[in-house]
Amino acid sequence: MKINLKQELTKQWFKNLQEIICKNIEEIENNKVLFKSKKWIRNKKKNEGGGESKLLENGKVFDKVGVNYSEVYGKLPNEFKGKIPGISRNTNFWASGISIVMHMRNPHVPAMHFNTRYINTSQNWFGGGMDVTPCFKDYKLKKWLHKKLKKMCDRHNKYYYKKYSKWCDKYFYLPHRAETRGIGGIFFDYKKNNWEKDFNFVKDVGLEFIKIFNEIIIKKNKIRWTKSDKEIQYLKRGRYVEFNLLYDRGTKFGLQTNGNIDAILMSLPPLAKWK
Amino acid sequence: MKINLKQELTKQWFKNLQEIICKNIEEIENNKVLFKSKKWIRNKKKNEGGGESKLLENGKVFDKVGVNYSEVYGKLPNEFKGKIPGISRNTNFWASGISIVMHMRNPHVPAMHFNTRYINTSQNWFGGGMDVTPCFKDYKLKKWLHKKLKKMCDRHNKYYYKKYSKWCDKYFYLPHRAETRGIGGIFFDYKKNNWEKDFNFVKDVGLEFIKIFNEIIIKKNKIRWTKSDKEIQYLKRGRYVEFNLLYDRGTKFGLQTNGNIDAILMSLPPLAKWK
Repeated sequence: MKINLKQELTKQWFKNLQEIICKNIEEIENNKVLFKSKKWIRNKKKNEGGGESKLLENGKVFDKVGVNYSEVYGKLPNEFKGKIPGISRNTNFWASGISIVMHMRNPHVPAMHFNTRYINTSQNWFGGGMDVTPCFKDYKLKKWLHKKLKKMCDRHNKYYYKKYSKWCDKYFYLPHRAETRGIGGIFFDYKKNNWEKDFNFVKDVGLEFIKIFNEIIIKKNKIRWTKSDKEIQYLKRGRYVEFNLLYDRGTKFGLQTNGNIDAILMSLPPLAKWK
Repeated sequence: MKINLKQELTKQWFKNLQEIICKNIEEIENNKVLFKSKKWIRNKKKNEGGGESKLLENGKVFDKVGVNYSEVYGKLPNEFKGKIPGISRNTNFWASGISIVMHMRNPHVPAMHFNTRYINTSQNWFGGGMDVTPCFKDYKLKKWLHKKLKKMCDRHNKYYYKKYSKWCDKYFYLPHRAETRGIGGIFFDYKKNNWEKDFNFVKDVGLEFIKIFNEIIIKKNKIRWTKSDKEIQYLKRGRYVEFNLLYDRGTKFGLQTNGNIDAILMSLPPLAKWK
């Protein structure tokens, strides 16, 4: 398949997924709180792509949820040489993806994150994953989540779950606190075995995320919460901010490639506290 | 003068300054809200120094103010080679300093930051500075602040103010937002001309900070504020978090040298928001 067609198919998938997930979230909010959409372009002078970031705030279920789609291209800054595959000689790149972070009103509903992307340099690969961050220890939820993810992964390759769930724990780790961000999930990058199979996996990760966040909300949103639960959530969100600003590669990539600030930092919680 | 005596004199100065400033702040709070102190050590097995971090929260004037003193030593991780002067062959270091960040209750009183330090590797130098971050445009305050700082700098060297105030604007800059953190101040590093003169300057920066924060509080704390002023402050604090976690070298240095997490991140505001 031609590279342009692959780009076309992946970006359409990401775009459609954005639409589906936003509708789903608005339904959870009984269509009383809606997304606000912002389209942005990377460079006003040159055509270097852009995106659409959608934000819903102050819902009954969601405190803040951002659903970002982007398609960006052009040249990467030189500092990426040696850090990203396939840009040793020329620094041309093309990237499209969808990323979502959900910060929930009820502290018993975990924060949830999902992202999938397709990146082209002189090499082409998929990346992505999802992870779940409860405010309270929740071994049962962890077991349930990983069972779901294993089942989904197993449909594609029996080695995926082990590899990608380990990668997730390693990636979403706060070394200065010696703790993982949450209860894990899956994370993968530089995925370039077989384009069709990889793309099928990427699509399945997106669909599985929809099932997972809906089920988690149904399970957890009915639990009553107190003001002191909310305070614990604010502190946990402080850790979320620390991870995203100190370590997250996606955040760094966005900032260094002149991405849209509001879209990049949409992952930050609406309100965070530090003791 | 022997290096050990220099270390002794500087660390005693930083320690005393911590005490004086904490007393001053408690007086501003009419001694009704007091600092809580935490002593910490860097390594439980080896003697690698430590510090004392003092925190006052939920005052009538201060929402949160951290006053940190530390004296740390040992070996620097190899990744510092080539990044810090005087550690090409061996990575031994010794460092002592005081750092303060004030987050104020009244949004019309700016956040204020001050830090001075003395660092020894195979070279020895002072660093430090102070900067002021209002939530609202305040040209008058900026002019006043810089006049005070220039006067103080001029007592030592007529080139200092220009150099150090520029350095401050350059250092406290958020490239992804294309904005400075606040209205500037002074910033200096690798200062190693004449030990006695440099130390005198460092002491004067500390004393000037005391005068400046007291005057600013007297000037600004009487201004009435509204709930919507407070919301603006929370968003401005979000930018403060972004700077400290994305760019601040002191934060990175602390995290990479196994410093005390609570002390390092004490600079973060108690509550920050993102839209």
